[in-house]
Amino acid sequence: MERNRGESSSRRARFEEEESEERNNNSNEFDDQRENNVLSSVEEAFTNTEVPSWNNQITYRAMVTAFVLSVLFNFVVCKLNLTTGVIPSLNITAGLLGFVVVKAYTTLLQKFRLLKQPFTRQENTVIQTCVVASSGIAFSSGTASYLLAMSKSIAAQGDEGNSTPNNVKNLSLGWMIGFLFVVSFIGLFSIVPLRKVMIMKYKLTYPSGTATAYLINSFHTPKGAKLAKKQVWVLFKLFGCSFASAFFQWFFSAGDGCGFSNFPTFGLQAYAQRFYFDFSLTYVGVGLICPYMVNASLLIGAIISWGIMWPLIELNKGIWYRSDLSPTSLHGIQGYRVFIAIAMMLGDGIFHICYMLYKTINSLTKQYQHSKKKEDEDHHHHQQVDGEITNLSPENYDEQRRNEYFLRDEIPTWQAFLGYDILAFISILAVPLIFPQLKWYHVLMAYIIAPLLAFCNAYACGLTDWSLASNYGKLAIIVFSAWIGLENGGVVAGLASCGVMMSIVSTASDLMQDFKTGYLTLASPRSMFFSQALGTAMGCIISPLIFWFFYKAYDIGQPGSSYPAPYGVMYRGIALIGVEGISSFPKHCLELCIGFFFLAIAINAIRELLQRFETKYGAYRVVPSPMCMAIPFFLGGYFAIDMCLGSLIVFVWRRLNKRKAENFAPSVAAGLICGESLWGLPAAILALAGIKPPICMKFLSASVNSKVDAFLG
Amino acid sequence: MERNRGESSSRRARFEEEESEERNNNSNEFDDQRENNVLSSVEEAFTNTEVPSWNNQITYRAMVTAFVLSVLFNFVVCKLNLTTGVIPSLNITAGLLGFVVVKAYTTLLQKFRLLKQPFTRQENTVIQTCVVASSGIAFSSGTASYLLAMSKSIAAQGDEGNSTPNNVKNLSLGWMIGFLFVVSFIGLFSIVPLRKVMIMKYKLTYPSGTATAYLINSFHTPKGAKLAKKQVWVLFKLFGCSFASAFFQWFFSAGDGCGFSNFPTFGLQAYAQRFYFDFSLTYVGVGLICPYMVNASLLIGAIISWGIMWPLIELNKGIWYRSDLSPTSLHGIQGYRVFIAIAMMLGDGIFHICYMLYKTINSLTKQYQHSKKKEDEDHHHHQQVDGEITNLSPENYDEQRRNEYFLRDEIPTWQAFLGYDILAFISILAVPLIFPQLKWYHVLMAYIIAPLLAFCNAYACGLTDWSLASNYGKLAIIVFSAWIGLENGGVVAGLASCGVMMSIVSTASDLMQDFKTGYLTLASPRSMFFSQALGTAMGCIISPLIFWFFYKAYDIGQPGSSYPAPYGVMYRGIALIGVEGISSFPKHCLELCIGFFFLAIAINAIRELLQRFETKYGAYRVVPSPMCMAIPFFLGGYFAIDMCLGSLIVFVWRRLNKRKAENFAPSVAAGLICGESLWGLPAAILALAGIKPPICMKFLSASVNSKVDAFLG
Repeated sequence: MERNRGESSSRRARFEEEESEERNNNSNEFDDQRENNVLSSVEEAFTNTEVPSWNNQITYRAMVTAFVLSVLFNFVVCKLNLTTGVIPSLNITAGLLGFVVVKAYTTLLQKFRLLKQPFTRQENTVIQTCVVASSGIAFSSGTASYLLAMSKSIAAQGDEGNSTPNNVKNLSLGWMIGFLFVVSFIGLFSIVPLRKVMIMKYKLTYPSGTATAYLINSFHTPKGAKLAKKQVWVLFKLFGCSFASAFFQWFFSAGDGCGFSNFPTFGLQAYAQRFYFDFSLTYVGVGLICPYMVNASLLIGAIISWGIMWPLIELNKGIWYRSDLSPTSLHGIQGYRVFIAIAMMLGDGIFHICYMLYKTINSLTKQYQHSKKKEDEDHHHHQQVDGEITNLSPENYDEQRRNEYFLRDEIPTWQAFLGYDILAFISILAVPLIFPQLKWYHVLMAYIIAPLLAFCNAYACGLTDWSLASNYGKLAIIVFSAWIGLENGGVVAGLASCGVMMSIVSTASDLMQDFKTGYLTLASPRSMFFSQALGTAMGCIISPLIFWFFYKAYDIGQPGSSYPAPYGVMYRGIALIGVEGISSFPKHCLELCIGFFFLAIAINAIRELLQRFETKYGAYRVVPSPMCMAIPFFLGGYFAIDMCLGSLIVFVWRRLNKRKAENFAPSVAAGLICGESLWGLPAAILALAGIKPPICMKFLSASVNSKVDAFLG
Repeated sequence: MERNRGESSSRRARFEEEESEERNNNSNEFDDQRENNVLSSVEEAFTNTEVPSWNNQITYRAMVTAFVLSVLFNFVVCKLNLTTGVIPSLNITAGLLGFVVVKAYTTLLQKFRLLKQPFTRQENTVIQTCVVASSGIAFSSGTASYLLAMSKSIAAQGDEGNSTPNNVKNLSLGWMIGFLFVVSFIGLFSIVPLRKVMIMKYKLTYPSGTATAYLINSFHTPKGAKLAKKQVWVLFKLFGCSFASAFFQWFFSAGDGCGFSNFPTFGLQAYAQRFYFDFSLTYVGVGLICPYMVNASLLIGAIISWGIMWPLIELNKGIWYRSDLSPTSLHGIQGYRVFIAIAMMLGDGIFHICYMLYKTINSLTKQYQHSKKKEDEDHHHHQQVDGEITNLSPENYDEQRRNEYFLRDEIPTWQAFLGYDILAFISILAVPLIFPQLKWYHVLMAYIIAPLLAFCNAYACGLTDWSLASNYGKLAIIVFSAWIGLENGGVVAGLASCGVMMSIVSTASDLMQDFKTGYLTLASPRSMFFSQALGTAMGCIISPLIFWFFYKAYDIGQPGSSYPAPYGVMYRGIALIGVEGISSFPKHCLELCIGFFFLAIAINAIRELLQRFETKYGAYRVVPSPMCMAIPFFLGGYFAIDMCLGSLIVFVWRRLNKRKAENFAPSVAAGLICGESLWGLPAAILALAGIKPPICMKFLSASVNSKVDAFLG
């Protein structure tokens, strides 16, 4: 699940980039219309619409809706986490479904003249915020990454030294929920005081938040509502198809290697190298909303690793590594897969952290210089620094109204500081109780560094839409597990510290995104804060429960199974590097890791350089993402093929009817993703009840088949 | 392959009925337009277009095109014959593809200013006639019915008495082509003298011929050409998809019971009763152009037989029939399937022969009375008898021109008689040489009766579009095999006489259809005659060659295999009834046969009565066809499910966009049918070369699967 969140945001970011690119090149009617809509006259359309007070924005119906959608989204995210860890941005879907549910409810009430309070966009924003916060926990709770990495089954894939009792923690629902409650809320307080600076002064973009606000605003104008209705209809149709398809596929999946998910589409040879179309409509849907380059990067990564590298390394079986190892052992071929993927991810992460730090400092310095200059000159004029407008005086009617509402409900700074301190205190006491390997001073240390990282992340996310939470988490693993050491349970301690760090950093940037959405929809910051808090609380309960459901029903984290949960073994691999260093690597693995580490940095550097200096062809857009390339190193190319199919569909669709594709591709994607993911619920229930599918669709080579026929006949 | 031909025409007929029904009920713009097009001003649009002389209508390019299309269509028909025997009407496709090929060629030449003779609709009609004639041979040649029924492998499915040397004839390419040449041309001469009476005097409808003429006329107007272009584009796209799908499916079909064609879509239980979707796009395409009631009848038949009757009979295994019989033995469960299906088909056939005879006599009597009355009254006025206009004086400009051209090129009656006599003489000498079991007087007898049956069939076909050739053939089997007897080789003799009879009767009605098309497109009767003769000659060579290809590549005629060729065993079954009577039936089979024989008659009678007396709701349209019901008795429901899927698609499509569905459904169907069928060619070559598919997609029950896993692992 890893950088999925980062991924999701980055995806959004790149998507936005591409779109604006296109908008500049060709100005078709629709885009112009939208441009106008977003840039100038939004608030005029809403002048006569009353804005409810902040406590009236958080209604019961909104909370019930948010709860239902939270369960759905947690399910989706959990399933994605456990299969590949690639998760698309679900903000838009959350906004859309929230609108539809409440709109349907209020329209019904209105028919019977029972409606007391009209459905407002502020309420819509509250639902969206709550749902996104709760499904965000599904990511930052690490049920498929750092928590799962503590378990015995993942530990068994490393060497024996790491399975000592203090380096393993058996998963249990109780401590997981407790831990999440302790660490998840603190992020909210860490960043609250800076909201005015970031939103109003620096005017950071927050592309996802802005896009969601645009969507919600458009829904609440009559034309937008009509389009939303159509989109929902498409969504539900595809939802049905996807659910039915998953249901149908279930019947044929008795036993391992059976069913559509093992369909050797390109032949048995390619299947052995994990190149096949696995009939997962979920990932076709994910591919639909990911930018082309993400999908292409995945495929490139799959080809480099499973197509070229692994077969070459396997030629040296018995020379580079012992040939009697179990196929999941990290000392064998699996080691190359895991460690090279980690190296590439770390390279990518470190590059981005440094780059963001540079950009943040750069931007802040310029802000400071300009404001100083302005004070010196002491007169008003509008200036831009790196795309952001720097003065606080409102530009137009929209801004004036937004500022007015944004400032109306205060959250006093002293309350924020107090909240942070109290929660940190509780956490410092509680976390060592859950993880005795982690001492109080370790946790204290984490809480001292965290606000700085949280600010960095929230600021960078505002600029690029790219949350680096999981990267900070990975760094925390290495630092803390090396500090504590193997004999003191450094593996579990490192993973737990990852949870502490990731929760703060991720929640902080989420909250700031929501403030931006709230700012643009005139929702009160206070209602944003509380709905995020409520969503977080929901997430802390729902997310472990749903994970538990899968965990009990299936054998989670086994490579090659339906739920390989790739980040489980990856995160433990990082912790192992932290405690053991590189001693456990198979032969030549270190050299390869170093190579790919720098390759990741180099690719990123090339991308940034091209983006800055080669503006004519936009060549930077065809530079693959090292992060994306690393994921299939471990998993294989099958989901990359699903996602490329999604890309192909959307490409053809755009060629045939650009407007329709833009309007409906996200709905189609959401339908496909949610439908198949939701089948996970009955499937898990059936698995728990011990009901097995009746048929096995098996794929045998012609020679094996004749043997089997002889055996059966 | 049986009544496929009849089926194909009947389908057309019912289709026409339905259409005209709709036309009466709602007069939408499009239908009106078409109505006008067909009924009044067609020839005015062509006034300035020169009509070439008859020998210039039969051009080299037309013959080359016809040859290429003949091969394609023979392939399609042969494959359909060998799988289920249900064959849709291919006239429209032949007309369409003929147009496209020659149009493309002439347009190309015109670009380089090399075109000497423009492409006329007469030439188009010549191509269509030639192709239909040659693919007609694929049906009347009986390669999948009466000829196959003579072979050893089919004989082995009956009891031992019928496999005596003189009741079996080994198939060989030489005598098959010889036999076809001897019997196929005679039908052309049998009916020629009556063309003026049937086309101009009785003005018989010939729905298929009329529809084809309408299509060809419309192609040669500018608007029609544009639509044709779009239709062809659709056809080729679907052709490609269908071919690719068949290609893809091939890879997974190593071994028996493997691959998509054995996909237990509704579970293994249903699969055992042959209810599954077998992923045959061909039959989805066939379902697209068959009327709903045909597809529904197939499904009803499948449910009655495989869903209810056979399971019930199998409960009495060991009581009603010996339990140690091979599953293909006609003394076991297979006997019930074959004989009950035959009984139902015979019941249906006899009803239709009687009904057509009654209608023909009735109509002729009225014609006679009217012409007499007219002579008595001796003045002109237009009268209608049973829907046909009876006077010869032209009604309008169209008719005037058509009559003019139809009468221009004579085929003298004495030539026709001479031709018939010479060919009959050759045949009487040659057939007994090929089949010593058949004496010269048997053949002479056949040729004395044949012209009468040919007339009946051509006349009835003109009224209803329903060719009963295969029914006459079946009667011939019973009569001749009973006459000659088992010990004198009555089985082979009966089957051979079926060939003699069917060829004449079928060719005669085909020719009259073509005359009608020619009449409506101003093509000369002489060019029609010669192109039909040329097409017949092509068919006599191509059809056995293509059959031979399949016969060598696959194990044809084995129940449950990919090419069960159901009519092989059916026709032999009929011959066995002829020679042995009912002695070989398993227990209670006779009672069931009698029941279903009369059920078929009763259903038909009810349909006709409803059609005549219950005009309010048109309830006759929901009476199933006994003929269609009987086909799945032997084969099972899998292809009925394909075809019902086709119906479903066309139903939904019509609901969404009626005009588009009407315009493009036939193209889609043709593309699906031709694409998958053509894959048969490379597939057969691969099979002949001994190249087997690499993968077996196997379907095992969960319990068998765990056994297999234990065996393999």
